[in-house]
Amino acid sequence: MTRLINQVDAIVADGLDGFCAANSDTLVLGEGGKFVCRRKTVPHKVAVIGGGGSGHEPLDIGYVGHGMLDAACPGGVFFSPTSDQMIDAVEAVAGDAGVLFIVKNERADVMNFDHAAEIVSEHQHEVRIVRVCDDLAGGADSAAARRGAAGTVIVQKIVGAAAEEGTGLAELQALGDKVNANTRSIGVAMRGPTAHDTTEPGFEVSEGELAFGVDIRGKPGSVRALGGADAIADKMVAAILDDLDASSGDVLFLVNGFGGTPVIELQVIYAAARRLLEGRGLNVARSLVGGYVTSLDMAGCSLTVTKLEDDMARLWDAPVHTPALRWRM
Amino acid sequence: MTRLINQVDAIVADGLDGFCAANSDTLVLGEGGKFVCRRKTVPHKVAVIGGGGSGHEPLDIGYVGHGMLDAACPGGVFFSPTSDQMIDAVEAVAGDAGVLFIVKNERADVMNFDHAAEIVSEHQHEVRIVRVCDDLAGGADSAAARRGAAGTVIVQKIVGAAAEEGTGLAELQALGDKVNANTRSIGVAMRGPTAHDTTEPGFEVSEGELAFGVDIRGKPGSVRALGGADAIADKMVAAILDDLDASSGDVLFLVNGFGGTPVIELQVIYAAARRLLEGRGLNVARSLVGGYVTSLDMAGCSLTVTKLEDDMARLWDAPVHTPALRWRM
Repeated sequence: MTRLINQVDAIVADGLDGFCAANSDTLVLGEGGKFVCRRKTVPHKVAVIGGGGSGHEPLDIGYVGHGMLDAACPGGVFFSPTSDQMIDAVEAVAGDAGVLFIVKNERADVMNFDHAAEIVSEHQHEVRIVRVCDDLAGGADSAAARRGAAGTVIVQKIVGAAAEEGTGLAELQALGDKVNANTRSIGVAMRGPTAHDTTEPGFEVSEGELAFGVDIRGKPGSVRALGGADAIADKMVAAILDDLDASSGDVLFLVNGFGGTPVIELQVIYAAARRLLEGRGLNVARSLVGGYVTSLDMAGCSLTVTKLEDDMARLWDAPVHTPALRWRM
Repeated sequence: MTRLINQVDAIVADGLDGFCAANSDTLVLGEGGKFVCRRKTVPHKVAVIGGGGSGHEPLDIGYVGHGMLDAACPGGVFFSPTSDQMIDAVEAVAGDAGVLFIVKNERADVMNFDHAAEIVSEHQHEVRIVRVCDDLAGGADSAAARRGAAGTVIVQKIVGAAAEEGTGLAELQALGDKVNANTRSIGVAMRGPTAHDTTEPGFEVSEGELAFGVDIRGKPGSVRALGGADAIADKMVAAILDDLDASSGDVLFLVNGFGGTPVIELQVIYAAARRLLEGRGLNVARSLVGGYVTSLDMAGCSLTVTKLEDDMARLWDAPVHTPALRWRM
C-alpha cells in the first residue's frame, strides 16, 4: 500500500516535526528530537514523564500538556526510546519535586527507563517509576507478565491531574500503582498494522474470525470465530471481569480504536459492552470512545475498564489541555 | 473483513445508542433516533443544525454541543437523512431566533434540507441555509458543483461560536457563506472505504499510486503516481491554492484522516504541507490534525485551508464543548 511518508527511516522525525509545528502554542521539541515537552515548565511540581515506541499516536506525545505529562520520549516505530532521551527530558523539565516515569511494561521500555532513573538519581533527582500492565493479551496471569496498553492513558491522566495539584512524588507513585491495579484491557483485531518497511499487514484473519488478545504492537493472540459485535463484546468484557475484581461501583470505560477501524464500529461495540458491564452490576460513570492508543493502521479495538476508587473520578474530570485530550480549560 | 457490528441494517441505530450513552452528560437522542441534540436547549439563540450521511463520524453528531451545533441528523451510511428528521430536530431545539441549516453540498442532502426548510417555515420558524462546498474533488470549477467535505467542521465551529454569542440569523448565514467561500479541501486515498454489505474496499490503488481528488464517500478521483509525502503534499497544496485566492495572511490548516491512516502519517503530511503553505506566503495560524471527517475506514487524508478573515480566528478560538472538539471550557 502507498504510504504518506518520505523515507522510511525519517518517519518519526518527520512526524515529530509536524506534530510540534501543529502544537507550537503549548509544546516544544527537545534538541535532536529526543523528547516533546511543555513550552512552560511548572516549578515545584513533580515532573511526570512518559514515552515508548512510536506508531501508537497520540500516545505518548499527544498527552503532553497541562494536567497530564510534562514530557514524552518517542522511540522508533514499535521500538523503545533510549535512556539518553529520558535523561535529556528530565534535565529539560524537572524541578525540585522529583520525577515520575510512567512506563508501559514492555521489556525494552522498562530496561531503558530503569537505566535512565539510575543515571538521573545520581544527578540529585529523586525518581519513581509506575509500570502500567493493563493488557490481558496473551492471557498473562501475573501483573508482572502483563504489558501496557490503552490503560496507560488513564494512568497518565489521573496521575497528571494529581501532579498538577501539587501532590508529592511518593503519593503520585502510589496513586499510579493503584490506578494501574484497578485497570484491565483486552484487544481484538481483524488486520494487523502494516509496518512501513513492508507492503502487507502483519496478519489478516479470515472473514468471520478475529485475533483475540492482540497487543498494541500487533501480536495477534489467538484467532477465533466469535460472531457479531454483541458476542465479541461479551467475550471481551468476560475476559476483563474474570481478572478485575469488580462487581459494583463506578468504572471508567474506554473503547479504543487501533487506527484502522471506523468510528461507527467503535460506537457499536461501546453500546454492546456497556450493556454487559451494567448487567454485571457496574456503573459506567465515565467514558471515552476513539483512537487514543493506536497501532499504526491496525483494524480492531480494545476495551479498558478502570474501577474508580478514592479520588480517581475527580482527578479524571480535572482540567486537561493536551493535543489529544482537552477539557474544562 | 470481519466487522465489529451486529446486523448491517442496524449499524446506525446501534452506533447512535453507543454514541449517546457515552455522551449522555451533554447530549440526548431524539425520538426514533432521528436526531442528536443538546440536553439543554439555549433560549433566544439561533438553532444551528447539521446532518448528512453516517459513516463520516465524528461528523456531524460529534459536533453537537456548546459552541457548535444544537442538533444533527444522521442518515444511513453514506445516505442523506430524510426531511422528517430535520423537521423533528427543529421542533426539538428551535427557539424564537430562527434556524440555520449547515448542509454539505450533496444532491440528496440539499434536496432534503430544502424540503425541511419549506415545511418548518410554514410553522413560523425563519430558516436560512448555508451550503458547504469546499471539496475540489473531481476538479469542479464552480462553487455550485463542488461538494462538501472536511471544511464542514470549520463552518460549523465558526458559525456555532457566533450563534452562541447571540448573533442573528441573517448575519450567521453571511458568516457561514464567507467561511465556506474562504475554504477549500482536496483528498487523496490509497484504499477506499469497505461498505458493511461488502467484504472488499471500494477501490485499491497499486503500490506507489494514489487516488487524487477522492471525495468523502470514497469516489476515487484520478489515479496517479505522485511519489512520497513531500510530492503528494505539493500536488495537494497546489490544487488548493490554484483555486483559493490566498497569497498572504493567516490561514487555518486542517489535515484530516479518512479513518484508516496512521496518525503518524497525518503528522508527516502536515509537516510537508505546512512548509509549502508558508513558502507561498501564508501564515498557518491555527491547525488541526486528526480524523475529523472520516469515510468509514478509507486510507488517506484530506487537506483543508481556510483564509481567516474578519472575526474568524477569534470565533475559532471560542469555547467549544462537543464530543469531538473541546477547548477552553
